[in-house]
Amino acid sequence: MSAMRASRDAAHGQEAANAAAVDFFRSRWVAAPEATQAGAPAELAPGFRAGGVSCGLKPSGETDVAVLACDAEKVDSALLLTRNAAAAAPVRVCREDCDRGAIRAAVVNSGNANAATGEQGYRDALAMRDAAARELELDPRSVAVAETGTIGVPLPIGQVEAGIATATGRLDRWGGMRFAEAIMTTDATAKLCTVRCDGVTVSAQAKGAGMIEPDIATMLCFVQTDAPVPDADAALRSAVADSFERITVDGQMSTNDTVLLQATGASGKPLPEGLLDAVLLQLALEVVADGEGATRVGRVEVTGAADGDEAERTARAIANSPLVKAALHGRDPNWGRIVQAAGMALAGTDLPELGPEGVKAEELAEDSAEAEIALRLERGDAAAHVYFSDLTAEYVRINSEYTT
Amino acid sequence: MSAMRASRDAAHGQEAANAAAVDFFRSRWVAAPEATQAGAPAELAPGFRAGGVSCGLKPSGETDVAVLACDAEKVDSALLLTRNAAAAAPVRVCREDCDRGAIRAAVVNSGNANAATGEQGYRDALAMRDAAARELELDPRSVAVAETGTIGVPLPIGQVEAGIATATGRLDRWGGMRFAEAIMTTDATAKLCTVRCDGVTVSAQAKGAGMIEPDIATMLCFVQTDAPVPDADAALRSAVADSFERITVDGQMSTNDTVLLQATGASGKPLPEGLLDAVLLQLALEVVADGEGATRVGRVEVTGAADGDEAERTARAIANSPLVKAALHGRDPNWGRIVQAAGMALAGTDLPELGPEGVKAEELAEDSAEAEIALRLERGDAAAHVYFSDLTAEYVRINSEYTT
Repeated sequence: MSAMRASRDAAHGQEAANAAAVDFFRSRWVAAPEATQAGAPAELAPGFRAGGVSCGLKPSGETDVAVLACDAEKVDSALLLTRNAAAAAPVRVCREDCDRGAIRAAVVNSGNANAATGEQGYRDALAMRDAAARELELDPRSVAVAETGTIGVPLPIGQVEAGIATATGRLDRWGGMRFAEAIMTTDATAKLCTVRCDGVTVSAQAKGAGMIEPDIATMLCFVQTDAPVPDADAALRSAVADSFERITVDGQMSTNDTVLLQATGASGKPLPEGLLDAVLLQLALEVVADGEGATRVGRVEVTGAADGDEAERTARAIANSPLVKAALHGRDPNWGRIVQAAGMALAGTDLPELGPEGVKAEELAEDSAEAEIALRLERGDAAAHVYFSDLTAEYVRINSEYTT
Repeated sequence: MSAMRASRDAAHGQEAANAAAVDFFRSRWVAAPEATQAGAPAELAPGFRAGGVSCGLKPSGETDVAVLACDAEKVDSALLLTRNAAAAAPVRVCREDCDRGAIRAAVVNSGNANAATGEQGYRDALAMRDAAARELELDPRSVAVAETGTIGVPLPIGQVEAGIATATGRLDRWGGMRFAEAIMTTDATAKLCTVRCDGVTVSAQAKGAGMIEPDIATMLCFVQTDAPVPDADAALRSAVADSFERITVDGQMSTNDTVLLQATGASGKPLPEGLLDAVLLQLALEVVADGEGATRVGRVEVTGAADGDEAERTARAIANSPLVKAALHGRDPNWGRIVQAAGMALAGTDLPELGPEGVKAEELAEDSAEAEIALRLERGDAAAHVYFSDLTAEYVRINSEYTT
């Protein structure tokens, strides 16, 4: 790196550090370990470097190809992928041809999902992954590939390969922001953090903002740490279960959802309990808050259900009801719509009539960015909650004017 | 009836007859028996009379209480009701305390759903039904009661009873339009028809326009005929299965869905094959076309599914996807969103990748009021179709500005 670039990057890092003075953990629903401190979000956890450039996938000319690499040779990793039966080519490549427990690097593009692109799409995803491996001098099976953007459009693989070469040449430990920006699609803001606690660092980057009701993962999220995480898969699954699996913007499971955790263990200190959960939950909430057209985030909690499935089904029916979402937007404490959605989820069963005493909807009317609503059934002890965004005219504008 | 009222009503009938010169069967998806002729929609089938007045439930002062009565003592009827577990009080009254095969009359209000209103709500629905029975001198169990409007608001039963008395005093065989208007909520247009074929008349009135994804019925629909329909329940179920059960506006099952068929048999001629189906399908399509904020109607057909459940699930996932609905609105032939929604419906199963050759989405881009899209799976022989509306900023406006 030239002295000039190094100095510019340091300045960039300082700005980002100042920005991080606004605490990353902004939601009242997130409880991070007490000793956690927010660092400069652009600075990745030790041992990681990233870069992002534009290769021309986005008509706007914004950055659209990104590379993330771990310098440590030994890395414990976990990779969670969408269950959508029409999964995109990169997801298929990751499923079939990646060593999911030992991922050294990731290569990502935004602007083209490379989904429903047939045999050629699969070959392109492989070529993209292999190009990054070549540039980084890594075993291809240790490189994850992720893509996001329009479905059904062939990938201009030549452009992407050129972008990968450029991005790899610019990898930087202060590259978190550039990486987070390069993976954005309809996101209004970059979503990333660097936090430190009890001697370990966790950095993470995520993107939304539509086609969001993940099943085992969300759109895209990358997490790096210098803590040792021997059972990375279990740790990631557990954190995702309480974060990305609990959110919805539009009830739509993406073809490209991917979450990657990489842990070097270099710090020698264990991951503080609750830290990974807090980071992923805050990022998940940022995805919801930045949901297409969204202006508010709701949390619905259903208690007293007969079993977990019923609680889950009811909470999701409420969170995905366009009527409840419009009420969240319109600041309308319309508890009747909550009752209706619950009755729909429980259709055909015998439900004691729900009245206002079983519903908490007042916060819908408040002038708050986060509104909590609740429904108490009297059928058992199971509970579930879901975070969701409001439905706005802007959501419709984004998705009806979007050009294929 | 005074001579002046009679003359005014006749004039009203004539206007309506002229209006009906525009053929009722407007959709390319409806095939009515060839000999069918559209009559004046305000004129009910022989033997039926209706009326509607305002009792003050709607702040706008529009009509909001309606009565429909059959003069024949013997009537075969069928009544289909929502499966929503939070069913409204009038639905519970109809379920528990009506002779569903011999319904002589119906009493309806719009502006108040009388749902989630507890014991008092149930008593009010009973009182409403009994008031109509009293005015009409009928057995209460032969009177159906239906209500639609805001959930969770106590019914001002005194006002409603006064309205019922007034409406009953104004029953008229030309009252179809007044009845259809008095049951409207957010509907932009009244939905009704009178058709004649092979010596029988069928008249019908329906209302939408939000909280529409009926299960065994739709919001409200009333059908009258002078044909004999000995197994009214089977006839109605079959016609509803191919019409109201196949539509969605917002994926929301209402607490108040009700469909009533009444048949006097006075014509002595059988119901022509396909007539009832055609009437209900056209009305169902009008409900979709007049869905809250809607500007276009889509029809999605899924073929090649492994079984009926899979076909149904996939078609509904596509029809209810806010992304597909926004594409319908934006005239965007975005077949990738169809693939994504199908992949979500089939999540976790092994799906051969779907490409553009399996999807028909061109009509999304056309300047047509009705757009047909199709998806061909290669998993079996089952098929299903669903009619749906587009998602617009106006839908959001209606439902976020709606005051509880």
